[in-house]
Amino acid sequence: MNAASQPVIDWTTFDTDEALAEAIFAELARQTGDGIGITRECYSPQEDAALRIFSDLAVAHGFAIDTDPVGNLVVRMDDDDGTRPAHYIGSHADSVPQGGNYDGAAGIVAGLICLIRLQKSGRALTTPVRVLMLRGEESAFFGRANIGSRALFGMIDAKDLAAKSRGVGRTLAEAMTATGIDIAPVREARTLFDKGKATSYLELHIEQGPVMIDRKLPAAVVSGIRGNLRHRRVVCRGEAGHSGAIPRWLRKDAVFAFADLIGRLDEHWRVLLERGLDLVVTTGIVGTDPDEHALSRIPGEVMFSFEVRSQSHDTLEGFYELFRSECRAVGQQRGVVFEFDDRVYTEPARMDGKIIDMLSKAAADCGLDPQTLPSGAGHDAAVFANAGVPSGMVFVRNANGSHNPHEAMEVPDLIRGTDVLYKAVTASN
Amino acid sequence: MNAASQPVIDWTTFDTDEALAEAIFAELARQTGDGIGITRECYSPQEDAALRIFSDLAVAHGFAIDTDPVGNLVVRMDDDDGTRPAHYIGSHADSVPQGGNYDGAAGIVAGLICLIRLQKSGRALTTPVRVLMLRGEESAFFGRANIGSRALFGMIDAKDLAAKSRGVGRTLAEAMTATGIDIAPVREARTLFDKGKATSYLELHIEQGPVMIDRKLPAAVVSGIRGNLRHRRVVCRGEAGHSGAIPRWLRKDAVFAFADLIGRLDEHWRVLLERGLDLVVTTGIVGTDPDEHALSRIPGEVMFSFEVRSQSHDTLEGFYELFRSECRAVGQQRGVVFEFDDRVYTEPARMDGKIIDMLSKAAADCGLDPQTLPSGAGHDAAVFANAGVPSGMVFVRNANGSHNPHEAMEVPDLIRGTDVLYKAVTASN
Repeated sequence: MNAASQPVIDWTTFDTDEALAEAIFAELARQTGDGIGITRECYSPQEDAALRIFSDLAVAHGFAIDTDPVGNLVVRMDDDDGTRPAHYIGSHADSVPQGGNYDGAAGIVAGLICLIRLQKSGRALTTPVRVLMLRGEESAFFGRANIGSRALFGMIDAKDLAAKSRGVGRTLAEAMTATGIDIAPVREARTLFDKGKATSYLELHIEQGPVMIDRKLPAAVVSGIRGNLRHRRVVCRGEAGHSGAIPRWLRKDAVFAFADLIGRLDEHWRVLLERGLDLVVTTGIVGTDPDEHALSRIPGEVMFSFEVRSQSHDTLEGFYELFRSECRAVGQQRGVVFEFDDRVYTEPARMDGKIIDMLSKAAADCGLDPQTLPSGAGHDAAVFANAGVPSGMVFVRNANGSHNPHEAMEVPDLIRGTDVLYKAVTASN
Repeated sequence: MNAASQPVIDWTTFDTDEALAEAIFAELARQTGDGIGITRECYSPQEDAALRIFSDLAVAHGFAIDTDPVGNLVVRMDDDDGTRPAHYIGSHADSVPQGGNYDGAAGIVAGLICLIRLQKSGRALTTPVRVLMLRGEESAFFGRANIGSRALFGMIDAKDLAAKSRGVGRTLAEAMTATGIDIAPVREARTLFDKGKATSYLELHIEQGPVMIDRKLPAAVVSGIRGNLRHRRVVCRGEAGHSGAIPRWLRKDAVFAFADLIGRLDEHWRVLLERGLDLVVTTGIVGTDPDEHALSRIPGEVMFSFEVRSQSHDTLEGFYELFRSECRAVGQQRGVVFEFDDRVYTEPARMDGKIIDMLSKAAADCGLDPQTLPSGAGHDAAVFANAGVPSGMVFVRNANGSHNPHEAMEVPDLIRGTDVLYKAVTASN
């Protein structure tokens, strides 16, 4: 399709928030669809295109737009000169490859609708509201999540800048430079966001799991963001042998040992959940060595990934200790050894207590169930929270998970979530 | 290495059986080594290379070589026109990928040494002795074991012929055709071996387990051969999802379900062994889908192989029922389904009583302990036995199991085993 041949959209003519939101998502899909899903690689023309759609809409409403030193855009109202502390409603414009249209974009749409409502209301705000349109939240291209927000807090290092897109393309440094960014301050790990200007950081995001569908919650307030502990590659090493010729008591079967380990961890997990702890455990990748595959070979080796997520640092470390100790126990009982690559830790983030209260009160005022949910996935809100900005999140119900073309948020649910944000930023303002 | 640049070996110049055997194994390793172990895929140039080494040696000693309709080679002495009933000393020339040098080849070496000894002795035999050099005993490439011997008895079906090497390469039919075999009679399941011409089928093989080392037996007579029940590919299908966003109670984690299944089977196995049953259980191949690999994705699918071996048909079928019923139970409890490819059954085989007596007497005459051992692994001898050919086997002590590069048979032990075969075929002949 030729974008130039499309009629220019007049973003001021939509009668309802729903109609406006539908039009934005349709235009995003048109410009950043990849034939299967949506691809908006960070610091690429597709991310730029998404940001341009949002910017055109903002300009059509008379809002001002600032570009920050790492290419994120800030939308502010005409009566906001950008100098006062503000509520930032933020989200990200990028997506994973062949992803969905709502992961990230929904939060920006919500923020822009809030600004339009504020403008229509004619309110004079003590604390202005700004929309922060972030780049590069997804880790799919450069292996590092939250690039746009981390770069604001000096948290992008030389290794990140040298990482290649999907391991083979241009480097992050090249991609940022191509977007017109001076990467020297990023490289020097300078802080590029003035925390004093942020009364809060608020982010609306689709839920990436099925809990809200199950509980019939159109929108809900997030209690905290899970951190995680990971090993990309653990190897369980036993001893290969002919499957028919080695009796059970002489085997060092790596797969049976792995299964034993997972069984033990599953049982610990179950017990810890009953005690009320927040925890998920996943081994997304498992495999015996394809070069040694034989039906009749006792597997001498199996590799697997390990990930544990929790809102609690102590739960993460506690479960990790259990994991290592069960590896030792299985090793002793089954004659195998476990080998571990580097452990990677991403710290959990607590949402600010006062912000949670503010959002929960707003949710209740909107007639929503005020129960809070943990966020299993990471978000830019975790970066702002851990940097000391009081942060909060609102989740919107969504079917089929995220990071795939089948994301299925209903726009009326998005508007319910937007109502919560709007209520929160206007309540005592 | 360039094979052409190697000096041609004069196979008639070795002073001792040990020296000859060492030279054959060295040449096999040189021509069919893969850098890590030994790879002689059935109906491939590497299997051909091994057969050529044996043939060159046979021709150098003035023996005649016949090729049977499925590409196996029969070596006979110059005074044997191939028409009389004979003792066949058989074994296979192929190996698993990255396997060892002795599994299969040792039996052919033993047979050839017997022929050379017979020639030197100048004996006139009532029952000739022939060496049957078989192809395709290992199932690692086409999922079907004993291809070379089963094809002689019309036991290779259309599905076997359509199987691809390691699931991705050329089909068995293509591989056989490339070797110059007319596969029409195989496809028609015709019997291509005249049982009336086989007084016995005798096979020497390395032990593939640690029992003979434990019992200090250099060579021993085999009592029977375990059969097996197999699935090459079982798929456990659950539901993929974001690892951080889906709680334990909503997960359909294929890997955790697989681990649960293996844990249950391991426990059944342990209990059945305590009841005295003969049984081993193996899943040599396990893997999540590489196209979907992500640390943070709940695995929606895992595939694995399944094999159970026993000397008892009833134990095989009984354990298989347990397996399927545990799959159903895990499926119900964890929301996954198991999908099975065709079940492959190889029946257990009893060695012929008279042949066992003949071999045991020969072993005693050679000063060996006459105790017999079961064979945990399958062998071509099982195919001949179940086809009605009186069959027997001699095992040779071997460290580190088989199907791996660390097989460690001592050549003097091979010669002790060869002595038993030689004594047996000459005792009343």
